[in-house]
Amino acid sequence: MSPGEFDKEVAPPRSGGASLLSEAQVGPAAASISELRSRIRAGVYDGPTGNLVRGLVQANVVVVPQAYASDFLLFCHLNPKPCPLLAVGRPGDPGLPNLGKDIDIRTDVPAYRVLEHGREVDIVRDVTSLWRDDLVTFALGCSFSFEDALLSAGLSIRHCELGLINPMYTTNVETDPAGPFAGPLVVTMRPFLPADAIRAIQITSRFPGVHGAPIHFGDPAGIGIQDLSVVEFGGDVVPIRPGEVPLFWACGVTPQVAVERARIPFCITHKPASMLITDRLNAEMAVF
Amino acid sequence: MSPGEFDKEVAPPRSGGASLLSEAQVGPAAASISELRSRIRAGVYDGPTGNLVRGLVQANVVVVPQAYASDFLLFCHLNPKPCPLLAVGRPGDPGLPNLGKDIDIRTDVPAYRVLEHGREVDIVRDVTSLWRDDLVTFALGCSFSFEDALLSAGLSIRHCELGLINPMYTTNVETDPAGPFAGPLVVTMRPFLPADAIRAIQITSRFPGVHGAPIHFGDPAGIGIQDLSVVEFGGDVVPIRPGEVPLFWACGVTPQVAVERARIPFCITHKPASMLITDRLNAEMAVF
Repeated sequence: MSPGEFDKEVAPPRSGGASLLSEAQVGPAAASISELRSRIRAGVYDGPTGNLVRGLVQANVVVVPQAYASDFLLFCHLNPKPCPLLAVGRPGDPGLPNLGKDIDIRTDVPAYRVLEHGREVDIVRDVTSLWRDDLVTFALGCSFSFEDALLSAGLSIRHCELGLINPMYTTNVETDPAGPFAGPLVVTMRPFLPADAIRAIQITSRFPGVHGAPIHFGDPAGIGIQDLSVVEFGGDVVPIRPGEVPLFWACGVTPQVAVERARIPFCITHKPASMLITDRLNAEMAVF
Repeated sequence: MSPGEFDKEVAPPRSGGASLLSEAQVGPAAASISELRSRIRAGVYDGPTGNLVRGLVQANVVVVPQAYASDFLLFCHLNPKPCPLLAVGRPGDPGLPNLGKDIDIRTDVPAYRVLEHGREVDIVRDVTSLWRDDLVTFALGCSFSFEDALLSAGLSIRHCELGLINPMYTTNVETDPAGPFAGPLVVTMRPFLPADAIRAIQITSRFPGVHGAPIHFGDPAGIGIQDLSVVEFGGDVVPIRPGEVPLFWACGVTPQVAVERARIPFCITHKPASMLITDRLNAEMAVF
């Protein structure tokens, strides 16, 4: 497949730059995060968010009934690299004030997956009619944030360079279970020459709240990946050039898989690649 | 008061060094963490733990009924600097295998506070007879771990140098509440010359799991501390020498205050300064 076939799903061809909020854009008339959020809220836009805006934290979203919230919170605590928790909503409250004053989780994700007993029963642009007083929202960090830091540092990320979705793989590393939540660690892969790999490890170590440092590099078999040309979860194969080493980061698909496998009666997540765009700057996620 | 009056409560006069486990000692006959834990388990030792061992993570302990565990877990998530969560036990399970294979939280803390409705009703060496199937243990990081890193880097910590307990203060910064858990942020203070302060900020930034970087430096009034000579929670006043700046770190007393103020029916915590000694190395707590 040529990169052109992925127009609507591609990762952003982002380039380094210090000005962040001023670069927010969604199509020719975009002006601000407020305007962008209004368009998503109105259901005008239901596509991928990776290329809509640079510099703002985007979040994986998992909404579960309160009866499962405590176990899911513990699952996130036990598995902080794949499930870096950015915010937890109050039961029944659709706001996430720590991530954006006016966020309404029922409308502000471009597209939602609705799951019943672990099976996807619908894809919708709005979950207002499905909202319940016992629903608890979890917002988890996303690799877009650390990719922003890598690009800002002058590193080239292969799938961005080629306009592809980053490759994802299921590993043989098990998450630490909590209640019904369990399953394998899912990873993303980015190849680098060794010097750039070292730099990438340094840079992403600064961002533990958005997956942090890689969990493995080198031989894919070391984490149970048999063939890098067999990608999963809608990712693309990316070439590894001579001298390069594949680096593997914990991926936010991990909690999505855990939630599906838990087969809880009801659950809402974002549609892959259509994330919640927050008001927080990626740069704020650095711990030093 | 002279430092000599604090013999039984003093912070350790620790010095830098690479050999960690081999320095474990409790009195002249001490040999290993196992032996140390056996003595504490047997009730032979019920004193402070700061000067018993170098290099091993020590933990603040909070045990609450399962009915309050979810809110307390959320409180820790919302306030990671004062409440850096090292481990959560399963309900009714006195083990914390991630912190030490044979840890039994009912016996392995030298001295426990038993609280009912927020009031201390007893101080005991063993809580086996009080244990219940619904109790959930939380182990939280402690400043001994980052102090180890500061000392190893050659910095001098004033209260260690003088054989005092570190000074603690209540601030006007409120924690983010969760259920019944709320209250002010409590901090510890360590003075440094600016160059050492910068180094201390760098070093402690590597340890977000044990309070991490300071939350403030300079004017104490900036966080609502009116007078550095009025210490709380059994800490000591330490002198600030010419040219030095006070640095303030989030303190593990914060969750202890929150638990007391929550007035939950039943709760167990460690007695201040008598911490849980784990099998984990302080050096393992560095995120990079």
